[in-house]
This record gives sequence, C-alpha cells and structure tokens, in this order.
Amino acid sequence: MRAPVVSLAKNMFIAVEKYGGTSVGSVERINAVADRVSASHQKGERLVVVVSAMAGETNRLLGLAEEIDPEAQAREMDVLVSTGEQVTIALLSMALNKRGIEARSYTGGQVQILTDNVHGKARILDINAARVREDLENNRVVVVAGFQGVDEEGNITTLGRGGSDTTAVAMAAALEADECRIFTDVDGVYTTDPRIVPEARRLDQITVEEMLELASQGAKVLQTRSVEFAGKYRVPLRVLSSFEDGPGTLITHEVSDMEQPLIAGIAYNRDEAKVTIRGVPDQPGIASRIFGPISAAHLNIDMIIQNVAQDGTTDLTFTVNRNEYAQAMKLLNEIAQELNARDVVGDDTLAKIAIVGVGMRSHSGVAAKMFDTLAAEGINIELISTSEIKISVGVNDKYLELAVRALHKAFELEGDVTEETLTEAQEA
Amino acid sequence: MRAPVVSLAKNMFIAVEKYGGTSVGSVERINAVADRVSASHQKGERLVVVVSAMAGETNRLLGLAEEIDPEAQAREMDVLVSTGEQVTIALLSMALNKRGIEARSYTGGQVQILTDNVHGKARILDINAARVREDLENNRVVVVAGFQGVDEEGNITTLGRGGSDTTAVAMAAALEADECRIFTDVDGVYTTDPRIVPEARRLDQITVEEMLELASQGAKVLQTRSVEFAGKYRVPLRVLSSFEDGPGTLITHEVSDMEQPLIAGIAYNRDEAKVTIRGVPDQPGIASRIFGPISAAHLNIDMIIQNVAQDGTTDLTFTVNRNEYAQAMKLLNEIAQELNARDVVGDDTLAKIAIVGVGMRSHSGVAAKMFDTLAAEGINIELISTSEIKISVGVNDKYLELAVRALHKAFELEGDVTEETLTEAQEA
Repeated sequence: MRAPVVSLAKNMFIAVEKYGGTSVGSVERINAVADRVSASHQKGERLVVVVSAMAGETNRLLGLAEEIDPEAQAREMDVLVSTGEQVTIALLSMALNKRGIEARSYTGGQVQILTDNVHGKARILDINAARVREDLENNRVVVVAGFQGVDEEGNITTLGRGGSDTTAVAMAAALEADECRIFTDVDGVYTTDPRIVPEARRLDQITVEEMLELASQGAKVLQTRSVEFAGKYRVPLRVLSSFEDGPGTLITHEVSDMEQPLIAGIAYNRDEAKVTIRGVPDQPGIASRIFGPISAAHLNIDMIIQNVAQDGTTDLTFTVNRNEYAQAMKLLNEIAQELNARDVVGDDTLAKIAIVGVGMRSHSGVAAKMFDTLAAEGINIELISTSEIKISVGVNDKYLELAVRALHKAFELEGDVTEETLTEAQEA
Repeated sequence: MRAPVVSLAKNMFIAVEKYGGTSVGSVERINAVADRVSASHQKGERLVVVVSAMAGETNRLLGLAEEIDPEAQAREMDVLVSTGEQVTIALLSMALNKRGIEARSYTGGQVQILTDNVHGKARILDINAARVREDLENNRVVVVAGFQGVDEEGNITTLGRGGSDTTAVAMAAALEADECRIFTDVDGVYTTDPRIVPEARRLDQITVEEMLELASQGAKVLQTRSVEFAGKYRVPLRVLSSFEDGPGTLITHEVSDMEQPLIAGIAYNRDEAKVTIRGVPDQPGIASRIFGPISAAHLNIDMIIQNVAQDGTTDLTFTVNRNEYAQAMKLLNEIAQELNARDVVGDDTLAKIAIVGVGMRSHSGVAAKMFDTLAAEGINIELISTSEIKISVGVNDKYLELAVRALHKAFELEGDVTEETLTEAQEA
C-alpha cells in the first residue's frame, strides 16, 4: 500500500462503510443506505462508501453471458459484471445528493484500484487515493464501486465473489481510515450459528486470527481475504447489520489474552467426507506420492492425519468436501494399487466442528474439555486436528447439532466468560 | 482530431460499423450482429464496431434514477446510463470470440474518447486511438461503447441521445477509416417517408448538405451532429439495415451537380404551429425586442417571416413546435402589449414540408414548380422559407400527405431523374 501523499487533518475521522448486494437490492434499500450514510456524515465523519451490485443484478448479467457463451473470456466477463456496481454507485450518489450531501461516485478504474491482470479473481496491488482524499477534505462523500479494479493496461478486472469487502478494507488501509464498517444482513459475528444454538451470542469483539479460523471453518460473515487484508494493514474492522441499529462486532488486532474469553466461537461444516488409505508402506516421500496426484486433480483437502506406523505400514486419513468424495475415492484406489497399500475406506457422512479462541494459547485443558463434552453426549470423535488457536474434530454428521449445542454450553458461550469457566477448563 | 501517430499499412481496409439499440436488443440480435461483423472480417476488413445499449436498457436505468431523484445530478446520470453500452460491448465481444474472432471491448474512457465536461450532451474533443490501431494491426476486432466518453479529469460523460452515431463517425475520422457504416432499422435514406408515399425510393447516395437539411426537417435516420462530423472530417458514411442485406445509402462529400438529381428528397414535420404578431411599429431593434424574451424562455423557433412594412407597421410570423404553441401565444401577447402592436394571431394546425437538393443551385424554377404543384392540388401555402439547397413551405396539416405525394410525383422522385424533368423544372 502506498503511503498517503497528503496527510489529512488530524481531527478528521475517516470511516469506510461497505454495503453488500442485499443492502442495496432495491431503490428503497438504497434510500435506506443513504439515510444511514447521512447519519454518519452528520456526526462529522468523512466517509467513503463501497457498494456491491444490487442483489440479483450480477446473476442477471451472468445469465446473458451464459446465453452467448458459457465459456466466455474472463476479460469480457469483467467488463460485463463490473457494470453492476457502477449502477449502484450512481444511484447511491444521487440519493445522497438529493439529501443535500455532496457525493461523488468512482468506478474501480477511476479511483484507481490497481490490480494484477488475473480477470475474475484479481488481487489489489495499489490504490491511488489522492483524488478521494481531496474529496474527503472538501467534505464530499465518496462512493466507490466494490469488487472491481483496473490492471496496468487499463483493462477492467474483478476481485471475485465477495471482493467488495476487500475493496472496502483496501480503501481503509490506503486512507488510514479510523474504521472500516462492513454492513451485511447479520448484526455481527456470533459465538456460533444461531439457527443451531438459539442462545448463540453476538461477540462485541474478536481478533483477526480468530475471525480467520472461524471464516475458514464455515462462518461466512466476511470474506477471508478481506480479513487477512485487515490484519496485514491493521485496519479496524467492524461488522454490522444494514437492517437494524447496533454496535456489531469489532475485529481487533491487539488484545491481551487476559481480556479475551477462552473460546471466541464455534464453527462447523456439514458437507465433509473422509478418506483413509490403509497399510501404506511407511517410507520417506510416501505422502507426496499420495498428495501429488490429489493436488493435480484440484481436490481440496483439509485435515490430514497420519497414524504412527505399525509393522512398517501406516494409515493416512484426510477430509475432502463431500461433493468431491467420489472422485477422491476413485483416485485414492488407483494410488493404493500403485503403492501396494492394503485398501482404501471412506465415509461421506462427516461433519467438522471447530472451537476457536486465542485464549487457548495461555490456557491448557481446552482440548480435554472439548473431548469430555462430546464423550458425555456419546459422540464418537473420528478425527482431530489442532492449531495454536483452534481445535477441530470430525464426527458423524448426525451428531452435528447436538455437538455444537453441547460445546456452546460447556464453554458457556451464551454468557460472559467467568473465572470459574477458566478454572474448570484448566482442571479438566 | 489528432493525426494518426502510426500509419497503418496501406493495404488495410478499415471500416467502422455502428449498431443501434434495436440491432443489439437481445442475445439473438447480438449474435446476428456478430455474424454480420464476422462476414466483414472474413473479407479481410479491419473492423471497429460501435454499439449502443440494448433497446430498453437505457430506459430501465433512467427509471431507477427517476425513482431516486427526478432531478438527479448529470454527472451521476452519466455514470449510470453509460453502463448500458458497457454491457453490450462485453456481450458482443464474447459472441465474436466464440466465433473464433479475437475481439476486445473498450469503454469510452478506455479508448479514450476525450470530451468536454458537459454531462449528458458532451462534445468529443479528441480520440487517442493508438491502442485501437494496435489491435487492428493485430487483426483484432475492436468493440467500442458508443455514446460515452471521459473528460479531462476522468469523469464519465455521455454525448446525448443518438450519440453512438457520433462516436462511430469520430472513430472513423481518428482512424482515417475507409468507410463508416451506420446500421439501423431502415435500409437507407429515402426520397421521403414510405409510410406516406409507398413509391418512395431508397437513395444510393446523398450529399452531406442534403442529409443535414433532411435531418433537420424531420428525417430521423441519422443524428444531425454525426452528419456534421462526417462532413467536417470527410468521413465516407453509409446507412444500412442491420436486419436485411443491401447497399444502403452512401453520404457523399464531393459530387458534381451534373451527376446530382434536382431534388434528393422531401422532408416534413407535422407538429408545427405558427404565431403572428401584427401591426408592430417598424423600427430598428424591434425583432430583438420580440425574440429576446422568446429565446430566454427556451422556445425553439424555426421559420421567421417579416412582411414589408405598411403604414409604419409590420407583421412578423414564426413557427414553433406545436407543444410550445400555448406558451408562445401567451408570451407574444405580453410582448405585443409592451410594443403597442395591434394583435397576435396563431394557428396550431401547421405542417412543414421541405424539398431538398443540391441540384437547386444550378437549376432555377424549382420553387415555381413546387408552388404550381401545390396550387394544382388546391393547397394554400401559408409560409415560405428558402435556403440555397432547400425550399420549405408551411401548409395546413390536413394537406400534409396530399402535398408530399404530389411533390414526390411532380419531381419524379420515384424513378431516376431524367433530362426531361430538369427541362420541365427550368421552364416552369
């Protein structure tokens, strides 16, 4: 990120607000966003608003392209779909102007958001925010098209699905904004999915690392890349609802473990499967001979577990997305033959559950508490994988809801974390 | 217009083709355009294709803006409506790519078509066609968004309704193209409206001057500005149908009068009204005291006729568009009082008919033949106005069809012009 050319006056509070497709899905919704932006503006904040295409618009455009050529060139796809956000920036600017707020719209190319030339999933390289800065100094609200940029040759690029979050965070980083607010259809990050656990609680704050672990485990509030970006450039990020008022969840950078609850939240993913190759000769290089072909077939694998060798052979298990299970089994059977492995077994009824929290770093006993809780419910753990701030287990998917509810209760996520809970965890 | 930086190989035939909203109004129609472009490409022509928004799309966008703010800022209107052509360039490029033709789309800003900053009706100042030229040299088809450009600060501008024709002509001028083809829903320029005169004949060619007179008189095949542009930069312009094959009409620049028919065509406009202020003191400056307020009220006036003064007063008549008749009458009554004029009379049942032809320059008797023809049909002429290559008359609108048919027959426009016709005209 380029350093700001001009320093903004110290007393200016700069906020970047991002509104997704549902939040700007109709003229009525765009007017509601204009009201919300107007309120922030009246507080004296200097505002950059990043918007997505109106809900349904991107799919309408993709439908037109599909009719012409289902394998249309990526360059032209980007020219096509980038019109979606361009419509929204114009309409929102009009709505703000009508409210007496001077607003100016910018496409990704106009800002300009420089990206590489990987059409459809470009990465932001730089933002030349000089013009935006000038607008902010003149108290104009700047409305920027999310999801899109421009490469060095001036070709229109897009950042891929959910890229508007990344645009917002990148703009906030370039402007050294005081806060980046992602407005969405949920009112924050929850301890777990409220559809499974009605007692799930909105978190006031969560660290970037926790958020990343939760996101990769299936909590889809924020696009992973935008959280990584926020972490890298230390952008204060807040997730809020565009439909109701509330503080949302702040994604933080530096929090001492003492202030931190043991567990931030529980993520899950139902659509998993596991595949085991058994009786593989335990030789150096065996893993690469297994995973090389799997990677070449573009199969996404997640947890990998290798048991200790017995009698010169070992078992190797990994999880795949359920819709790639059949392909994985077929491929692994071929590999097993080549390697003279005993056999291949699999199970496509797996669910993955992860508890995440930076508090784990300084508190032992979390894993044991997790296993005890599941054991007490009679739930068999089929796989375990851990990182510094996360413990994931694989269980039969019929136990998913039961497991999540039990863990949510055991770690007292519905209320504040008390000393008692910590002690319990340590003792466990 | 900037002179070409790089000279294209002499043996390259460059054509600019422009397809309007109806011609690209659906995926099916876009595929038909791709087939047509493909045919030109296979002949070895180097092609730039300028397209409008899909029919209906601009109105859809205007409807969204209208819902938000009927008086939306012009800058944002341009950001909004320019997405219409951007969708078309992407889809047409996809359709060409699918046919194995390498195609590249460019927005007005990417080309780049530099305009002034009068949003909604910007004028083209310059085109930097270097990149387009490079594409043509590499045998790529270049697809350009019509109707739009970019000002010096990078703001998106639009050229106003029908501006895609102007884009095409300007691209042709910048590239020194061999031909600029405007594809539309008619198969050329006709001697007059075939709905009134079934014998009306398509013209193989017409001069720029004649085309301008016909266009301003109500023949809406080409936007006036694009014809002016073609005249100024001597771009060979051809109007053709995008729905059927045919040579269309070539708009020419230098043709000797000898090759030229006496009359090229007959234009008409039904929606006229006339207003007369009578008994105005015949003093210097009186015209400006009448037309000053009329101009200030943005009333478009056309024919102006002042009779010879009698008894120190004069009568002054002019025509206005019928939907501004009431406003003109009210305003003129106020002016009449101020000037001590006798009275104001008006008539909102006027139609205007004009015969146009560069042949008039070298042949006398055309006006007389026109008046004789109308007299023979018992049609009273209420106003007359002439220019070097045009004679306009105002008649009661109930005579419109009769007058146009009689004139079309009298000047033998349904067939080729013969020596006999010319002689007749001269003798009349």
